[in-house]
Amino acid sequence: MSESVKIVEKETVPSEATMIIGLPDVGLVGLISTSYIISELNLKEIGYMDSDLLPTVVVLHKGLPHSPLRIYGNQNLIAVISEMAIPAPSIYPIMQKIVEWAETKKVKRIISMGGIPIQNRQTITEPKVFGAASNQEQIDMLHKKGLKIMKEGYIVGPQALSMRYSSNRKLSVIALLAQSFYNYPDPEAAAMVLKELAKISEIKVDISKLLEKGEEIRLKARDIMKRTQQEMNRMKKSQEYDLPLYV
Amino acid sequence: MSESVKIVEKETVPSEATMIIGLPDVGLVGLISTSYIISELNLKEIGYMDSDLLPTVVVLHKGLPHSPLRIYGNQNLIAVISEMAIPAPSIYPIMQKIVEWAETKKVKRIISMGGIPIQNRQTITEPKVFGAASNQEQIDMLHKKGLKIMKEGYIVGPQALSMRYSSNRKLSVIALLAQSFYNYPDPEAAAMVLKELAKISEIKVDISKLLEKGEEIRLKARDIMKRTQQEMNRMKKSQEYDLPLYV
Amino acid sequence: MSESVKIVEKETVPSEATMIIGLPDVGLVGLISTSYIISELNLKEIGYMDSDLLPTVVVLHKGLPHSPLRIYGNQNLIAVISEMAIPAPSIYPIMQKIVEWAETKKVKRIISMGGIPIQNRQTITEPKVFGAASNQEQIDMLHKKGLKIMKEGYIVGPQALSMRYSSNRKLSVIALLAQSFYNYPDPEAAAMVLKELAKISEIKVDISKLLEKGEEIRLKARDIMKRTQQEMNRMKKSQEYDLPLYV
Amino acid sequence: MSESVKIVEKETVPSEATMIIGLPDVGLVGLISTSYIISELNLKEIGYMDSDLLPTVVVLHKGLPHSPLRIYGNQNLIAVISEMAIPAPSIYPIMQKIVEWAETKKVKRIISMGGIPIQNRQTITEPKVFGAASNQEQIDMLHKKGLKIMKEGYIVGPQALSMRYSSNRKLSVIALLAQSFYNYPDPEAAAMVLKELAKISEIKVDISKLLEKGEEIRLKARDIMKRTQQEMNRMKKSQEYDLPLYV
Amino acid sequence: MSESVKIVEKETVPSEATMIIGLPDVGLVGLISTSYIISELNLKEIGYMDSDLLPTVVVLHKGLPHSPLRIYGNQNLIAVISEMAIPAPSIYPIMQKIVEWAETKKVKRIISMGGIPIQNRQTITEPKVFGAASNQEQIDMLHKKGLKIMKEGYIVGPQALSMRYSSNRKLSVIALLAQSFYNYPDPEAAAMVLKELAKISEIKVDISKLLEKGEEIRLKARDIMKRTQQEMNRMKKSQEYDLPLYV
Repeated sequence: MSESVKIVEKETVPSEATMIIGLPDVGLVGLISTSYIISELNLKEIGYMDSDLLPTVVVLHKGLPHSPLRIYGNQNLIAVISEMAIPAPSIYPIMQKIVEWAETKKVKRIISMGGIPIQNRQTITEPKVFGAASNQEQIDMLHKKGLKIMKEGYIVGPQALSMRYSSNRKLSVIALLAQSFYNYPDPEAAAMVLKELAKISEIKVDISKLLEKGEEIRLKARDIMKRTQQEMNRMKKSQEYDLPLYV
Repeated sequence: MSESVKIVEKETVPSEATMIIGLPDVGLVGLISTSYIISELNLKEIGYMDSDLLPTVVVLHKGLPHSPLRIYGNQNLIAVISEMAIPAPSIYPIMQKIVEWAETKKVKRIISMGGIPIQNRQTITEPKVFGAASNQEQIDMLHKKGLKIMKEGYIVGPQALSMRYSSNRKLSVIALLAQSFYNYPDPEAAAMVLKELAKISEIKVDISKLLEKGEEIRLKARDIMKRTQQEMNRMKKSQEYDLPLYV
Repeated sequence: MSESVKIVEKETVPSEATMIIGLPDVGLVGLISTSYIISELNLKEIGYMDSDLLPTVVVLHKGLPHSPLRIYGNQNLIAVISEMAIPAPSIYPIMQKIVEWAETKKVKRIISMGGIPIQNRQTITEPKVFGAASNQEQIDMLHKKGLKIMKEGYIVGPQALSMRYSSNRKLSVIALLAQSFYNYPDPEAAAMVLKELAKISEIKVDISKLLEKGEEIRLKARDIMKRTQQEMNRMKKSQEYDLPLYV
Repeated sequence: MSESVKIVEKETVPSEATMIIGLPDVGLVGLISTSYIISELNLKEIGYMDSDLLPTVVVLHKGLPHSPLRIYGNQNLIAVISEMAIPAPSIYPIMQKIVEWAETKKVKRIISMGGIPIQNRQTITEPKVFGAASNQEQIDMLHKKGLKIMKEGYIVGPQALSMRYSSNRKLSVIALLAQSFYNYPDPEAAAMVLKELAKISEIKVDISKLLEKGEEIRLKARDIMKRTQQEMNRMKKSQEYDLPLYV
Repeated sequence: MSESVKIVEKETVPSEATMIIGLPDVGLVGLISTSYIISELNLKEIGYMDSDLLPTVVVLHKGLPHSPLRIYGNQNLIAVISEMAIPAPSIYPIMQKIVEWAETKKVKRIISMGGIPIQNRQTITEPKVFGAASNQEQIDMLHKKGLKIMKEGYIVGPQALSMRYSSNRKLSVIALLAQSFYNYPDPEAAAMVLKELAKISEIKVDISKLLEKGEEIRLKARDIMKRTQQEMNRMKKSQEYDLPLYV
């Protein structure tokens, strides 16, 4: 078993694009919002990840096998999703590879979408979205555009690593985190993230359809959520409820 | 312990043949159908796998020891079977080796037979068979020959890896998947697969004997099924019941 | 996954400074006391640890991501803290790196603060502090300054390794250990450590505020304590209750 | 810890000898029969295995330490026994080494003795013995000498590997398998094996003493049996009860 | 984490000395007797083991950190003790290093003291001591000096490895084994070992004090015993109760 992680490009990948990442995580917020963008903007599959660190699985689509971790895009946008929970021990090399590849593609910035679990989510009708970023200029920009900043807290898992590895390479990365159910697919939270995304980028999609299809999406995403939860537990995602001490 | 995986050739292996693979998996559909072909067409043992990644076991046949993973063939057909469940962690290097070897033998195409679990199998008298393939030409061919296409879904385990590794090497691979019991040997499903196989290849066998001997085969295969189930659980085969999200 | 451990310097690191270490351990005594010094003396973040051996986590502060293991300092003081329990198996390479780096920075001495668990802590109003050191000169100094010496006993975990690795490199290291709760944050013990620290160094802070905010700190530190306890159990910290035999 | 496996020769080892192997396995049949030959023929200890893959144990004999895996012999016979259950994960390199060494000693043939579990052993007064062999000539010879052939079945563990590795090196290997208790020392089965061994080799011993001392041997071998059983379970020896499918 | 094992010499180590070893084992017999010699003969600490294979622990003595595995000596005696149970998986490289180092120091002979568990220890007032040795000359010497020989049996763990590795290097090693409690510190057994030791070496100490302080020692050693027992279980020490088969 070779433990290599490769990104295979099927089509020309745009240079200096914005990259959005939506991997299975809290409430599947990132996956749902990124998938919705892919479908609304009709992005094309331009690449995929090939690795024995991913589970022994292929996703069939129109009878053809696909990697569960795929990359879509157009001339100025790259979108990364995974239809399978990423096994906790594989998350280091997989995120490392995504960020490395992003650098070779000279992406202008990475926007990583996700959820931040709150315990009383069911009592909230309009989940709040918070931003975090790898440098002060981006924080200032978020602030100027009217976004709330997630001042203190923990981020655990894929989004933490995308921030860590991007910082090391001086890539600009923004995290958009919506208040969300922990282990229940949350299309409403995904819609709120898209609303904020529109304020800070050219990526504007009509979220009404996403809100209408909420129930349907929850159902479709149920199985992925179940498996994602297992990996989140192994990553100690529950730590995101913790109070940080910060000096 | 050397972890190498070797295929030992005992007889001349045909070049540009069709290769069929039937490893222990859901309902043992692939193993039963491939074994039946070997026996009906009187294929000769032409090689076997030698590896410490296989269990510490030999299969006796007429008093002589054999590898549990053997390769049979004639002038234009190669058939791969394993009489032992393949340990889940060994599946990567074992499938990698089989596909690699297939390439050196210039096989024209690989047909991987198997089952796709359905929960109400006992209420179905004639299981349906679905095809999937590594490229659009094969999908079109399957369609033209009247086969149903498995449009959306997951494939997990040996068949997923045979598709993944074959795609990487531009080998043509077709998967034929019959509706099947999950952990109960299913000769009827195997017969249905053979019926479809006959439509798309020169491999034509009389399935009536297979259907007649159903009960006997189920009994003989009981132990292999039991052990295969343990490995299927470790591979999270149950995921094949899941709904994929696909963008 | 690269298992390398790196210390990244963000600002000029003082040479020939005193280094204090406060990693999560018994009663969080070291972390609380070191954090209090950082905040009282307004130390600046001058570096951090970057390693896949740390959990997949970032700590947000004012919306910016930070490593959980950070280094603060001014012209003559370096302070190392971690806001995350250090996973037990990673403690060897992490402590090794901290001590190695301390040597390259020519630190004059290392003072490692911590707790020593006692079972009847709740009946004690003013926890005693004991000193230990890597060489006789430091022991004599501690004695002369009026500190109690921890004559016989075990030290387990990060503090043990800081002593072991420092001795190997002929670095001077002092351990200050306050009687403490085992798995309950103990700001009073931290305050007692700071009182003794003032006697043997230039590091003098007003501990009254620390004592006043005791309840608040206990609350804030609750989650870190909970996670630290899990790692302490894996390190067999309970051994610190044991009687050593010493010849 | 060095994982090397070495055979240390204490005395001259005969060339072109017959090698018999009796490692702890089903009913300890091989160990009991081989030990009995060693004692009856007064074979000398001529070598032993030295390896950290064996347990941290020495066997005392007349106050002197011995390896649990020892080699005895005379001018034309080599006998290998182990007084300790071989840990399941170490069985690959240990059997590999034994076969490798046998080849360097140009052994004419290897005869591996053992048991094959049957569930109603207690109802059988004279257990049957079956032969298997690595090539057709040996099968023919066994048949001609009046031995029963074990036509279909599984062999698991040390005997399987001795056959697998010997076949790879074109060494002749015969397995003699007596019907036996699974986890209860079975001197009667061992005696039956010796009876058949006498038919196909020069190794002839009087089995009456072995049968007389049955109860005593059972008692002495109880502890080794208990530990062997643990390793047999890890090797999935229970598979030997399974029905093979063989095409 | 470097897995190297190093012996650091603090003082000149005598050449051609006798080496006694007393590591934590059955009844702590070896540790208690060796520690008593160190204290009675006022041996000096001349070295210690430095290794990440030892637990993350330092032993404080007069406030200074010490390795749990230390070496004491005078002009013609070297004594090795460990105040911590040695983790079962580390025992191979640690014993290997001790024996290797002994060879470089040209030790004349190694005497390894320990206990051999007996189940009715509490009914015995004067435990018997048995000797074993790596060669016949030593066995003859033991016999001549009036010691009982442990003719048949198993030795498991550190003492087994000291015999195995010493034999490989042609070093002379004697094991003195007193009947002892399994997991209860046994100073009486230690005293009996010392009595026999005096018969075969120049190492003569007055054991009356050891017997008087029995209760006190049992108390002091309780914690080490508790932890040693855990490691003994992992080494399958219970095998020492087993009956060897020996051909």
